[in-house]
Amino acid sequence: MAAWVLPDHIADILPSEARHIEELRRLCLDTARGFGYELVMPPLLEHTESLLPGSNSAQDLQTFKMVDQLSGRTLGLRIDTTPQTARIDAHLLNRQGVTRLCYCGPVVHTLPASPYATREPLQMGAEIYGHDGLEADLEILQLATQSLRASHLTEFYVDLSHARILPALLAGHALTEAQLQSVTQALTHKNISAMRELGKQLPSNLAQALLALVQMYGGLEVLTHAKTEFAAWPQVLKALDELAWLAGHANQAVSIDLADLRGYAYYSGPRFSMFVPDTSDALVRGGRYDEIGAVFGRKRSAVGFSLDIKVLVGLLPHPQPQAAIRAPWSEDPKLTQAIAQLRAQGHTVVCLLPGHESVVDEFHCDRELTQHQGAWTVRPLHSN
Amino acid sequence: MAAWVLPDHIADILPSEARHIEELRRLCLDTARGFGYELVMPPLLEHTESLLPGSNSAQDLQTFKMVDQLSGRTLGLRIDTTPQTARIDAHLLNRQGVTRLCYCGPVVHTLPASPYATREPLQMGAEIYGHDGLEADLEILQLATQSLRASHLTEFYVDLSHARILPALLAGHALTEAQLQSVTQALTHKNISAMRELGKQLPSNLAQALLALVQMYGGLEVLTHAKTEFAAWPQVLKALDELAWLAGHANQAVSIDLADLRGYAYYSGPRFSMFVPDTSDALVRGGRYDEIGAVFGRKRSAVGFSLDIKVLVGLLPHPQPQAAIRAPWSEDPKLTQAIAQLRAQGHTVVCLLPGHESVVDEFHCDRELTQHQGAWTVRPLHSN
Repeated sequence: MAAWVLPDHIADILPSEARHIEELRRLCLDTARGFGYELVMPPLLEHTESLLPGSNSAQDLQTFKMVDQLSGRTLGLRIDTTPQTARIDAHLLNRQGVTRLCYCGPVVHTLPASPYATREPLQMGAEIYGHDGLEADLEILQLATQSLRASHLTEFYVDLSHARILPALLAGHALTEAQLQSVTQALTHKNISAMRELGKQLPSNLAQALLALVQMYGGLEVLTHAKTEFAAWPQVLKALDELAWLAGHANQAVSIDLADLRGYAYYSGPRFSMFVPDTSDALVRGGRYDEIGAVFGRKRSAVGFSLDIKVLVGLLPHPQPQAAIRAPWSEDPKLTQAIAQLRAQGHTVVCLLPGHESVVDEFHCDRELTQHQGAWTVRPLHSN
Repeated sequence: MAAWVLPDHIADILPSEARHIEELRRLCLDTARGFGYELVMPPLLEHTESLLPGSNSAQDLQTFKMVDQLSGRTLGLRIDTTPQTARIDAHLLNRQGVTRLCYCGPVVHTLPASPYATREPLQMGAEIYGHDGLEADLEILQLATQSLRASHLTEFYVDLSHARILPALLAGHALTEAQLQSVTQALTHKNISAMRELGKQLPSNLAQALLALVQMYGGLEVLTHAKTEFAAWPQVLKALDELAWLAGHANQAVSIDLADLRGYAYYSGPRFSMFVPDTSDALVRGGRYDEIGAVFGRKRSAVGFSLDIKVLVGLLPHPQPQAAIRAPWSEDPKLTQAIAQLRAQGHTVVCLLPGHESVVDEFHCDRELTQHQGAWTVRPLHSN
């Protein structure tokens, strides 16, 4: 095979898209900074034990493994930056109060998450540690929303869910691993008939509750229905109250999808997803995950969100090509000075190297530096 | 071993340094854009054949290898972005004229390059393709210089060298692999006595030339001495003329080090290194490497430079902690609006979540939002 063929689901990012990704990266990180989130840069590779704390086999399979020549131990490429950020909060910063952190960098997956997904997402995210009240959940929801708005994504909707509802319903029932998987499958695909079939093997009150849960999506009225349906489960009622508070404070329209279990397995409280119309995968996933720090010896309240900037860029119209000024190549120190001044002002000045005067592929040059009565001045360029 | 212990020569980057690295990243990329260099983002991992075109065993040993679950083939983590950028120029862009590309992203090494080096440098670089004249070499030298100046690095010096001098001296002599290595070693360490010893095994004109070469460093007068010393080698004289032209056009003081062979093996013409006083490793390496594209089926003239932003950040004083405005947590829509306005203006506003009013570790809050006669206003904060 030719030397320049890349692996499947791995791609080069060429100039116009790369520039847009860089812009989105800056917009998202600057939005997080405006909210007081400090940037951290965890490493791409770590010992697999710290990279995959309490991991399941699916995460293990997603992780590229290598041998460390220095120690002989197994290293893995990170598949998600959230556990690394929790490690930094727990051990390196070790603060008593609230800590807000954000990050943006590549993660790598052995297998693509969907038929068109890259195996090298550019994950951006933010996390808040040390506050167990819903104000932290609200702030993360608002920051995620503001990140999309800053990126000029106008049409998206927000689904709220809660990671404690299903465990509360299942508490006290000893389901087999296969039954548990079937329940999850039926919820994920909102498959009512599968859930009805499955219910025949389960106690009738649980069967009825799960059949109700699989249909619990829609507007805020879902929360009212759920309160009636799950009145016998105080833990569920508490979770529903949390969602009602968040929905009431979100300052934007939200919908409810109590059956949504997709995304990271570590969520332990309210969670949310953001979707663009006519797409099936969530663009943003976020929520509370209070348990993750325990692996690193310091359990802390935690809420966060993440998104893949490579997915985000695909949902937005490409920006205009960047306008530039072209300049001839000359040893005239006055020209050198004029070019340096323009560049210091933020302009792009492309020098036409000798012999290449006719071809400027890269930029849309709409002006040029020309000499007029000894002085170098910028003039509009009428290209056809 | 505890779960949070990172591998040797792998580190988390914590907030103040991470913010500085992000600033330098933006300054370097924006400087390159000002010169007309388009951003590209090649992948972190590729088939080893394309990642290591014409590689030697040292590069092979530096490369982490993994098995692709999709194809069973061997993938490698990139150790250097330059060959990837050459592949993009040769195949994806395939332009006739001059192409200018830049990049910034992590590279990963199995072994640290020096006792204190990270195994995960953040490599930033720029490359110009398609022009074989010295104007391209000059532009890359100027861009590298301007990148350091934009980063507020004031004290650094530039060494010029040339990759064709040693091959020209050795042409026609059949040295053993061991002799070749000894020559390289003696030059790298400027070891005169080793070179004198080595010369006893070599023809006398070659021995004399190599002994001269090992001492060829200093100011521009070195070029004059070299012209006399190497008068019998027309190829060397041509190389010296190229260096004289570059030195004359550089608009800055440069020194000469004809014995410098360190850095990438792919250089094929004029090359340069930038050093900070009292450091032994070059901060920036650059030069002409016209041969690399041939592996990808399209040989193109090429000049480029690269640097590690993680090294650069270590040479600069840390910036001041970022000033921020703190705000109480309240459901008052007027406060929400005031916070949103301040953030839109580029300010950082940190909300004190209920119960955490006394602790703000993250930012230096020098102002606060307070309510006065029903309106929210920013007031200075006198912290002790």
